[in-house]
Amino acid sequence: MLEQTVKSELIALLGDRFSDEPEILTCYAYDSFLEESMPDAVIFPKTTDEVAKIMALANRAKVPVTARGAGTSVCGAPIAADHGIVLCFSKMDKIMEVNTADRYVVVQPGVINGDLQKVLAPSGFFFPPDPGSMNFSTIGGNVALNAGGPRCLKYGVTKDYVLGMQVVLASGKVVRFGSKNIKDVTGYNFTSLFCGSEGTLGMVTEVTLKVIARPETTQTLLVTFADLDSTARAVSDIIGSGILPVSMELLDKMTINAIEDAVHMGLPREAGGTLLIEVDGSREACDRERSQIVHKVKEHNVMAVEEAKDEADRNRLWAARRAAYGVFAKIAPDILSEDVTVPVSKVPEMIRRIYQITEKYNLKAGVLAHAGDGNMHPLICADRKNQEEWKLVKKAFREIFVAGAELEGTLSGEHGIGLAKAEFLPLVMDQESRDFMACIKKAVDPNNILNPGKFV
Amino acid sequence: MLEQTVKSELIALLGDRFSDEPEILTCYAYDSFLEESMPDAVIFPKTTDEVAKIMALANRAKVPVTARGAGTSVCGAPIAADHGIVLCFSKMDKIMEVNTADRYVVVQPGVINGDLQKVLAPSGFFFPPDPGSMNFSTIGGNVALNAGGPRCLKYGVTKDYVLGMQVVLASGKVVRFGSKNIKDVTGYNFTSLFCGSEGTLGMVTEVTLKVIARPETTQTLLVTFADLDSTARAVSDIIGSGILPVSMELLDKMTINAIEDAVHMGLPREAGGTLLIEVDGSREACDRERSQIVHKVKEHNVMAVEEAKDEADRNRLWAARRAAYGVFAKIAPDILSEDVTVPVSKVPEMIRRIYQITEKYNLKAGVLAHAGDGNMHPLICADRKNQEEWKLVKKAFREIFVAGAELEGTLSGEHGIGLAKAEFLPLVMDQESRDFMACIKKAVDPNNILNPGKFV
Repeated sequence: MLEQTVKSELIALLGDRFSDEPEILTCYAYDSFLEESMPDAVIFPKTTDEVAKIMALANRAKVPVTARGAGTSVCGAPIAADHGIVLCFSKMDKIMEVNTADRYVVVQPGVINGDLQKVLAPSGFFFPPDPGSMNFSTIGGNVALNAGGPRCLKYGVTKDYVLGMQVVLASGKVVRFGSKNIKDVTGYNFTSLFCGSEGTLGMVTEVTLKVIARPETTQTLLVTFADLDSTARAVSDIIGSGILPVSMELLDKMTINAIEDAVHMGLPREAGGTLLIEVDGSREACDRERSQIVHKVKEHNVMAVEEAKDEADRNRLWAARRAAYGVFAKIAPDILSEDVTVPVSKVPEMIRRIYQITEKYNLKAGVLAHAGDGNMHPLICADRKNQEEWKLVKKAFREIFVAGAELEGTLSGEHGIGLAKAEFLPLVMDQESRDFMACIKKAVDPNNILNPGKFV
Repeated sequence: MLEQTVKSELIALLGDRFSDEPEILTCYAYDSFLEESMPDAVIFPKTTDEVAKIMALANRAKVPVTARGAGTSVCGAPIAADHGIVLCFSKMDKIMEVNTADRYVVVQPGVINGDLQKVLAPSGFFFPPDPGSMNFSTIGGNVALNAGGPRCLKYGVTKDYVLGMQVVLASGKVVRFGSKNIKDVTGYNFTSLFCGSEGTLGMVTEVTLKVIARPETTQTLLVTFADLDSTARAVSDIIGSGILPVSMELLDKMTINAIEDAVHMGLPREAGGTLLIEVDGSREACDRERSQIVHKVKEHNVMAVEEAKDEADRNRLWAARRAAYGVFAKIAPDILSEDVTVPVSKVPEMIRRIYQITEKYNLKAGVLAHAGDGNMHPLICADRKNQEEWKLVKKAFREIFVAGAELEGTLSGEHGIGLAKAEFLPLVMDQESRDFMACIKKAVDPNNILNPGKFV
């Protein structure tokens, strides 16, 4: 519960943009991960100045403040684990400047990624990071989680596009890092540090993003393989040879069949795996790259190669990939989707291990992957209410992370740490390195009010 | 002077890899900037373990330690401003792993950038950052300064290629950030923070770098314009239209004539400016992009467009650009090269202002630029011994930085802050933002022993 004086000050500042009604709070108690925690209040500032006043107040009163965008996070990052205030950026949703001549835009954190893409489209420019949530998730959330997506194989993740930001610190002080310049080595590179810091270091209230020209054309292939090992080996063979498609999305047999059961798209049920591969650039470059890829995949037990003939065809091929998460919901009440990432040559071995582990515990598991950068999303379908099964799910995931670490992989390629993986950090970071994180956190947020319970 | 106990401990650890002989120290008292400062000792560790012991000792004794690679920095970053120890990484020069299948290499900080390129060449991969010093400068130095270069227009700067690192902290503790994975959001993004931190946060003792496949072909154009304003407008027109060449190197009339005076390359003395433009990719994509560029530049008062016919021809066109710094040495005893950067649409205005300012003070000045990303290197030729003139040089540079800041530019695109620009930071960073830098520095290096006097 908030102290009455804190509540009164917040209401004086924000009016009806403060709420502590339980039915409202319930909506801000969860994200797309499994945990929930009720905040004491939710607030909707409209300006950086308001955020500065809120933080100064919270810091004085030592009340936790957890930033929130659209709540599409799948790791619990915006869950107010220690209660306190959820600061929702939904009313700071202005696109402040679009300057394609200088290849940047300036946006408030509550701008929806997909809305920015729509505004940019007529100019022929785009913002590459494309998380699955892009039609709902906010730029602030994308920055906080350093979001990736399918086309990040070629184009890189959110941090590669953040040129500058305005941040309100825990103290309420307002600072600026970076600039509107594509190239800038003035001062410490805090823009990159804040990317992926999950709201634990400050409140990002404005972001300057690099945008790039949309390629002339995109070509899409759906390749079907007889077995999953061949699918995975084709991925590492293509990437290792220096070809860099925009996306290489892998689906395994269980995923393919789950999609067919649910939405009947005509995918080959007997296939061991499929790769949805996209290349972009000039038409000539695409033709060439596509034929190199077709040549490569044919060395790996291919059943069929289908090329999208037009945009409708392309959408049809992507529809299966896009449906993948949804269709798992039909298999079991709960889905735990993970995000383990390994160097691409180890994708075949990592997939074998995921299967060994989940089969050992008799769990229903599928594998989706942004395979080209080794970013795998093993999905386990289970019922949380079945406590025995749930224990096995947890056990399996720990073993999957251990396997990932053994293969020089990492806990998360794009989903973040949040509540989901804090306990696994020691698998990939030693004590001294974690201490260094804690040292920085303590310097920046001595009262530990910024999204406490996360990350460090 | 080092305390005798410190000196004895260092000798016990390093033997003849410790020196405090004045004639040796003199060699480590300067970089490629103008200032000098004698260290008390120079040391050459061979292992991370040695670096850890050195830092623990220095921290206990509160002796400054300044990291040094090849000393090619042009901002004074590796100058031991507060004396103490220069820690030279030249004996930590192993390439520890080359893994093109997974698109990374692991190197020690003393590896020369150009040597890494040579080792990578047979595999068809390369490390994109190409500072002018690349045949001499070390990867550790490139990381410390977040080095760029001509092809960074298309490929990005050093920070865009650092996947992971091992760092010895001021305390002597050894930590690891990042990993070998292209996509990794596990833990705070310290690899990016350390890029460009100029040795003020820790000693980087191992770096994992992303490498990429070399493009199939490169095409090179030399475009000559009647006046400099047209040259600059052609740059912003090309970039603003979404074309992204590998490089766009601008030379102004003074630079062209200085080159002709010195090395007679047949450049057009009457030209107002030239652009050396390079595109790469598949042959078809290059052909297409080149013809788009030729079409664009013809709208801007072009005198001639020359296309390199083969590699020898390409080298000939680049020779002028490469000679540019050297030939200025014939004009005056001292050259001050700066690094102001503005959004690309403001390149024409920034160039006008550079001329206005240097003409006002009657100074000999030329402009080189990595023009495509707005990164300009105004060069002023002068004689430091002429104190009156030198005062005007300093005055002119301050005004150039003020002009850059007014145009939403920044102090440095790639050279760094070092001793050269610490005093100008307030032009582009307010007090609170600088305080935040100081807060991080203090948390990480409480005794201020890591390259003191720099940055914050």
